[in-house]
Amino acid sequence: MKTREKIAALRRHMGEEGLSACLVPSSDPHQSEYVPEPWKRRAWLSGFDGSAGEVLVTRKEAGLWTDGRYFLQAESQLVGSGVRLFRAGEPGVPTIEKFLAGTLGKGEVLGVDPFVISEARASSLASAVEASGAKVRFLKRNPVDEIWPDRPPLPTGRVMNWPVRFAGKGVAEKLKQLRRAMSARGADAHVVGALDAVAWLFNIRGTDVEYNPVVIAYAIVGLEEAELFVDEAKLPRGVRARLEHHVQIRPYRQMLSACRRLARRRASVWIDPTATNQACAEALGEATKIRAESPIFRMKAKKNPVERAGMRAAHARDGVAMVRFLCWLESAVPGGAVTEQSAARKLESFRAEGENFQGLSFPTIAGYGAHGAIIHYGVSEETDIPLRRSGLLLLDSGAQYLDGTTDITRTIALGPRVGRLERDRYTRVLKGHISLASARFPPGTPGARLDVLARGALWAAGLDYGHGTGHGVGAFLNVHEGPQSISFPRGLDVPLEVGNIQSNEPGFYEPGRFGIRIENLIEVVEAPASNAGRPFLEFETLTRCPIDTRPVDRARLSGAERQWINGYHRRVQRELSPYLDRDEREWLRRSCAPI
Amino acid sequence: MKTREKIAALRRHMGEEGLSACLVPSSDPHQSEYVPEPWKRRAWLSGFDGSAGEVLVTRKEAGLWTDGRYFLQAESQLVGSGVRLFRAGEPGVPTIEKFLAGTLGKGEVLGVDPFVISEARASSLASAVEASGAKVRFLKRNPVDEIWPDRPPLPTGRVMNWPVRFAGKGVAEKLKQLRRAMSARGADAHVVGALDAVAWLFNIRGTDVEYNPVVIAYAIVGLEEAELFVDEAKLPRGVRARLEHHVQIRPYRQMLSACRRLARRRASVWIDPTATNQACAEALGEATKIRAESPIFRMKAKKNPVERAGMRAAHARDGVAMVRFLCWLESAVPGGAVTEQSAARKLESFRAEGENFQGLSFPTIAGYGAHGAIIHYGVSEETDIPLRRSGLLLLDSGAQYLDGTTDITRTIALGPRVGRLERDRYTRVLKGHISLASARFPPGTPGARLDVLARGALWAAGLDYGHGTGHGVGAFLNVHEGPQSISFPRGLDVPLEVGNIQSNEPGFYEPGRFGIRIENLIEVVEAPASNAGRPFLEFETLTRCPIDTRPVDRARLSGAERQWINGYHRRVQRELSPYLDRDEREWLRRSCAPI
Repeated sequence: MKTREKIAALRRHMGEEGLSACLVPSSDPHQSEYVPEPWKRRAWLSGFDGSAGEVLVTRKEAGLWTDGRYFLQAESQLVGSGVRLFRAGEPGVPTIEKFLAGTLGKGEVLGVDPFVISEARASSLASAVEASGAKVRFLKRNPVDEIWPDRPPLPTGRVMNWPVRFAGKGVAEKLKQLRRAMSARGADAHVVGALDAVAWLFNIRGTDVEYNPVVIAYAIVGLEEAELFVDEAKLPRGVRARLEHHVQIRPYRQMLSACRRLARRRASVWIDPTATNQACAEALGEATKIRAESPIFRMKAKKNPVERAGMRAAHARDGVAMVRFLCWLESAVPGGAVTEQSAARKLESFRAEGENFQGLSFPTIAGYGAHGAIIHYGVSEETDIPLRRSGLLLLDSGAQYLDGTTDITRTIALGPRVGRLERDRYTRVLKGHISLASARFPPGTPGARLDVLARGALWAAGLDYGHGTGHGVGAFLNVHEGPQSISFPRGLDVPLEVGNIQSNEPGFYEPGRFGIRIENLIEVVEAPASNAGRPFLEFETLTRCPIDTRPVDRARLSGAERQWINGYHRRVQRELSPYLDRDEREWLRRSCAPI
Repeated sequence: MKTREKIAALRRHMGEEGLSACLVPSSDPHQSEYVPEPWKRRAWLSGFDGSAGEVLVTRKEAGLWTDGRYFLQAESQLVGSGVRLFRAGEPGVPTIEKFLAGTLGKGEVLGVDPFVISEARASSLASAVEASGAKVRFLKRNPVDEIWPDRPPLPTGRVMNWPVRFAGKGVAEKLKQLRRAMSARGADAHVVGALDAVAWLFNIRGTDVEYNPVVIAYAIVGLEEAELFVDEAKLPRGVRARLEHHVQIRPYRQMLSACRRLARRRASVWIDPTATNQACAEALGEATKIRAESPIFRMKAKKNPVERAGMRAAHARDGVAMVRFLCWLESAVPGGAVTEQSAARKLESFRAEGENFQGLSFPTIAGYGAHGAIIHYGVSEETDIPLRRSGLLLLDSGAQYLDGTTDITRTIALGPRVGRLERDRYTRVLKGHISLASARFPPGTPGARLDVLARGALWAAGLDYGHGTGHGVGAFLNVHEGPQSISFPRGLDVPLEVGNIQSNEPGFYEPGRFGIRIENLIEVVEAPASNAGRPFLEFETLTRCPIDTRPVDRARLSGAERQWINGYHRRVQRELSPYLDRDEREWLRRSCAPI
């Protein structure tokens, strides 16, 4: 089926159901960023497969809303589809809510599957259309599923136990911590919808979703007992036996009836309005709802000492793979046979040799030259180009290991010469990276307050980058997690805490020419005893891989900046050398030479 | 009457009125920071005369709530008063709302004068006490006035016209701008309660309040006509005639009946819940209320070119007075006859010689040695001490001129030697000051995002200061104004705009030893054309007075920092020298010598 045919089929279905409009978001029942194949309904329907975007189909129109990262990709994927691109955030472009308010008239009905929108989103949709006398109908069956002939089944990957030697904390202890938070808010029950929250709470990992080692499951935690809703076929006997000490296993499909049971009991239920889907919220009916961020998110974000040790070990191993790759790349590029895609595969193969490797943590971005300026460039057959001995290669990649998750970006000068503009921008990005990496700050500081440090050197020249500076990273979990953030204004009310792990990734993008990003993961630690006697916080960099110094304008680094980079390189060289062969060791020595 | 007697008298009055508790805030009907004598009810009742604090009297207890700036002062002023000090913001100290919720029982009544609390505060009080079955009664007469025997009358200073040659914009134009904003929000009328907003809108200034050249008045602006509520006796004929082109003059006391008229008309009235008192809000009854920040505040904060030129001229004149004073101080201190108070008076006398001088913009802070660590130290007979040839003098002062308002802090090394600790802290404060002064940032940036720049050098050593970094400053108006701010998290939703004038005042305070603050006023201007082609913003420093370089650890300044300070001093010397005598010029030359 072509997109036009799919949209026509959807419209026929809408007609039968009496719908004037139908919303197809990109999310799943767990509000996930990455979703398994059968839940990629927006991608199947529209042909646009970026990670963020929503399709709205009315009787006459079909539109895709996506953000700046995906304008170019969406434009090309929508050609001939009849689907119009709405560039969200651009001046004059309405939000879906605004568009609906202006399109639907009195008595008209917008249909949406209540599983794939959060309770918060459901409210915003309802108030948008109700103002003009239309209404939202929460559908019993997903409308795309009704017209998708060969829709794959839900994945059935086996669930694994994440042992306490990696997790650092047992399920009993985690449940106790959660129940303390629930009691403090007067909640009898907490509905857990986010997959990484479920995985963290029960120390389970899985393969249901690419890149994210989560298991498709819900949980309801009461003050005395807990229920885990998961396809039982996926649970090996040992895992099930371990879980049953703490939680009752229920079929995945029984989640709604469990919510209805809470409603009948008139329980006080803590739900996170942005992480709980509307179907569950509706099923909770008459229960008293305590609406607040799930306490699991902050518990999960504050890594314990065992997780922190695991992350360090994973980063050393990941650094070895990066160094071996970079050394190989330097010798292979002149041969002429290396492309963006083959380089990405080669890097993966080096990683796969490492202990505890479980797969990548996101699709590798290997953007050469002008491709580097496309912030979320995905390597593909169609766009693949060979790497030559000039220009910059932006390489953003990461892996999942049993003991931790990595995410690193390096921008590499492939040729002997670096252009004046590239050198200027690279130096500014590096200055921003160092400024954030060396920041100290008092407890209570949200990351948003520090974001300016990473941008200052670019701002000084009237330059900037259009993405956040730092996201939280899970421990053998999702590479993007919250609630803390080093971006503005995201996470303004979430102070950075000891044990948070964040990315530090300023960049600069010159469209049509080059892209630069320098990314390490950093951990919040207590600073050495301060003058004032009260504890201050600072960052410790976890990532272990040289930062290319060839594109740096050394004269423009301050003494402190040079000290930082030389100190970082000394440490990288010392820690990685033992795991490298002679050539690689020599390459690392050169790459870590003091500047 | 002693405080104990006043509290007893208030309790008798409360008994007659059937009140269980009575709240006496420090504010006035216009939510002013500085209030005229007859409205200083909290200070009269409690004996505590700091700028911020509230007294709550119940049948059995009397408490004063104030913040960290005033703990020491409040402690000493409350001795023997029977009033308990509640250190607001300290762990375990309840807010007034929490305290009330825990104290008042079912059916009990809290009395408060609705004129002296904002509508927003009235709601928060009401919901605090209603939870426990008590209620708030808005009193017809202020309870302190009932027991204050010799309460002075309201001031009757003459109103002056602030001519367009200073204001830059006529009343007609300002009304038009305001009415455009009102129409856009669907408002028929806007109630203006803040005195500086009224003064700005009608280009009037007065002497009703010390330090703030405002006039006690309200205004109601409709789409066609406007009313100004002011004591008519204060209006010279010419001023009245000019005003009557734009606005109808009404007696001050008719404000409530005008609000009731709007209610009867069922008008759509824009009120700012934090700037409109509860008495007006109540009188507006059935009117449709549009609750949002008054649009006047942002209009007023964005100075026009004439105001900006006036601010520059005022700062040059103020700088001349500062330099003459500092030169005098250097020669006078060794004589032994200079004290904190006499120095402050001498500085005022230099300022008073300047053209357009109208008075000080706030009480001078002259804190020598340990006094410098008391952030809001007020010079007084009782605490006055002589200045000697050692240690640091913190001098925070400013003036009102017909063409502008100034606010400057210098920290001066009085002796030939500066201690190691003082030098370190002074250098860090200066680095922070320079970092903020030289920042560039994209349009849309709220000042709160930049605050970290002023703190970074202190944070690096685990140090900080417990006040904001920058407040807005009026043009021949209040020295503190909003809504923009360079503090965190204040003003997070208010981007800095070209024409905003802010203070830049990082500091450091070592209790019992010394205080440091370096404050200039800075103006938001457009940065020179940037690389990216889109406009960026930056600051231009308005204050003209050397920054003492003797306490600076020069080796720790970067090249760019040295450049900034030398450039600033070159400019100060060039612009002020023509107005100085030979000795002063020589002093300035030395003080501006490059480092």
